[in-house]
Amino acid sequence: MALIVQKYGGTSVGSPERIRNVARRVARWKSQGHDLVVVVSAMSGETNRLIALAREVQGEPDPRELDQMVSTGEQVTIGLLAMALKDIGVDARSYTGGQVRILTDNAYTKARILSIDEHNMRADLSAGRVVVVAGFQGIDAAGNVTTLGRGGSDTTGVALAAALRADECQIYTDVDGVYTTDPRIVPNARRLRTVTFEEMLEMASLGSKVLQIRSVEFAGKYRVKLRVLSSFQDEGEGTLITFEEDEHMEQAIISGIAFNRDEAKITVQGVPDRPGIAYQILGPVADANIDVDMIVQNAGVHGLTDFSFTVPRGDFARASRLIEEVRQHIGAREVIGDERIAKVSIVGVGMRSHCGIASKAFRALSEEGINIQMISTSEIKISVVLDEKYLELAVRVLHDAFELDREPV
Amino acid sequence: MALIVQKYGGTSVGSPERIRNVARRVARWKSQGHDLVVVVSAMSGETNRLIALAREVQGEPDPRELDQMVSTGEQVTIGLLAMALKDIGVDARSYTGGQVRILTDNAYTKARILSIDEHNMRADLSAGRVVVVAGFQGIDAAGNVTTLGRGGSDTTGVALAAALRADECQIYTDVDGVYTTDPRIVPNARRLRTVTFEEMLEMASLGSKVLQIRSVEFAGKYRVKLRVLSSFQDEGEGTLITFEEDEHMEQAIISGIAFNRDEAKITVQGVPDRPGIAYQILGPVADANIDVDMIVQNAGVHGLTDFSFTVPRGDFARASRLIEEVRQHIGAREVIGDERIAKVSIVGVGMRSHCGIASKAFRALSEEGINIQMISTSEIKISVVLDEKYLELAVRVLHDAFELDREPV
Repeated sequence: MALIVQKYGGTSVGSPERIRNVARRVARWKSQGHDLVVVVSAMSGETNRLIALAREVQGEPDPRELDQMVSTGEQVTIGLLAMALKDIGVDARSYTGGQVRILTDNAYTKARILSIDEHNMRADLSAGRVVVVAGFQGIDAAGNVTTLGRGGSDTTGVALAAALRADECQIYTDVDGVYTTDPRIVPNARRLRTVTFEEMLEMASLGSKVLQIRSVEFAGKYRVKLRVLSSFQDEGEGTLITFEEDEHMEQAIISGIAFNRDEAKITVQGVPDRPGIAYQILGPVADANIDVDMIVQNAGVHGLTDFSFTVPRGDFARASRLIEEVRQHIGAREVIGDERIAKVSIVGVGMRSHCGIASKAFRALSEEGINIQMISTSEIKISVVLDEKYLELAVRVLHDAFELDREPV
Repeated sequence: MALIVQKYGGTSVGSPERIRNVARRVARWKSQGHDLVVVVSAMSGETNRLIALAREVQGEPDPRELDQMVSTGEQVTIGLLAMALKDIGVDARSYTGGQVRILTDNAYTKARILSIDEHNMRADLSAGRVVVVAGFQGIDAAGNVTTLGRGGSDTTGVALAAALRADECQIYTDVDGVYTTDPRIVPNARRLRTVTFEEMLEMASLGSKVLQIRSVEFAGKYRVKLRVLSSFQDEGEGTLITFEEDEHMEQAIISGIAFNRDEAKITVQGVPDRPGIAYQILGPVADANIDVDMIVQNAGVHGLTDFSFTVPRGDFARASRLIEEVRQHIGAREVIGDERIAKVSIVGVGMRSHCGIASKAFRALSEEGINIQMISTSEIKISVVLDEKYLELAVRVLHDAFELDREPV
């Protein structure tokens, strides 16, 4: 008998019929003797509907009032799920974030959890009840409703699992686990039985949208076992996200190939190679709240260097204008921008102890004539920037080169 | 400068545009130097949408969970109204019933208010803010969300006005006041400048649906000045509901003609005239939770009497079956039912001190050949039951007979 926190996203609770399906799944776990805390999102589309309504009333909605009304999306779902459970004879009780209570700071629309009172939940679990909690929301010390920001229901699930010291936090989504890469690009991509938190973080930040990155960080910090499962399949063990040190000794060298086509590249050529130049270039970009991802600077020749970085594609025009001003100011030669790039990354904790991974990857790409524009590496990741048109080809080539379709031995 | 509680119903806040209209109206009152607490209902249709959703999940929704989710309708409106106010430069803050906090018992779906904490509201009013409160809802001592039942937003408005000792509670609806009768039946029906609480109670219970009856009782109990106004007209002083003793000395004899076509009549003929017989007849009806309205028993002849009463038309079939069983049990002669009746009532506190009202009414009806089937009277009301087909005629005849189209002198 275990204590399990389950989280179901908006698609999984998108209709009365789907909510009844979730109830049946919860009932099966309960009938196996487990204690269950279930976190749910708003029904799919509901949060967007509420935000659109708010914008009709106030162009830039007041954050406190926006949280007050948007939090109702999850409140509707918890009521419905508790009803669906009772309807099949499973005692249940629903709680809003405020009722639980999930205490947050008062940074409306992006609040952070400060503490969770487990009293009510423990009492219900002892009484044999399923506890249903609204994701995405909390309450500040003054009693104002707050929300954790988009995707925050994952974070709620992990935070409850941490507070209750749950045996496992199961995140139900519309995919049945984490794959070696996107199966739409590589049909023989393989579901990973396990993946480490570090790898998961790299994959999430690289655009594998299975889990919200913040919830993964949170799970790592509080050492909550996370499992990703499909809410549309009855079978399957999904993917367990583990702590490398504990359970991941037989790790494959490479876990997966992630990619991101939402970036653009800016290169400043002929930059005077002097101390502080990187700050002079990137300072104005950071001040404009534009996230900079990869940064590459080559060794200078004749006192000049080239400086490249990537930004979200939506910020490309703004960033380009800023950098053109910077160029004149620092006396660099030229600014070259490219929106048609893609980033492909090889991720794996095993590469720490194995050399030759980078050269193997570069060879595989070169054999297909794919030119590499930028390279950056971390302990468990090698990322390359390519012409966007080669994205799918590069992912397939790398997936093959590292034989990711095969279960590691 | 006064403290005013305003309440806007679902139609008044039925769209973003209407919410902005309400905000402009509130801003006008605020600019005149008044302190304002505004209670709002869910946007029209929203409560029904949520209830329908609940019924799709559980045929008879769990009351606690139903309140949890249905209360979100008002929570959306308060957020939107606070945004609309801020958008036109009026500082505002929204509160759910739980945040205010409106403490209720835990009779889900029909909770009663126990106390209201005015602390937050006073602080906001002192800071020059408009306070926006969700109607229809509260919280019980354990922190569960409760609702006050249909139309409960009026009750919230009156309860807040009582707790804050407000100068006036303004109920904005889609009519511009209380009329001498329904203007759709009598085109020259006249808006009353004032009406007493007792008259209003009689009219409300007789089907004049301007105000929820419970809120009128509540206002009477706490001596809250209530004013009914139109939310679709900028002018007009509506109808003030007063305490007779204070301000209503120049009361007209008759205030209005109310009517109800939602009743059915059941007559038990040839009932043995012995003690306890009324209870034997009505006991089973009450046990079946059927409301009995008018009850008439004639003096008996030869030890037998006739016993008539009215029930809501929707309960007629069920009540008839019960009474047929009772008839056999008590040995009465016959049960006669009639669904095609209507009740018409003359209401006015002035009739206490004026005799001849009843005979004037009966003569007016008889001159039109309208047969009276039942009569019942109270201190300030005379009700008659008629064949439904005479309803409009009877209302017009009585409105004319008492010259209700003319302002009293």
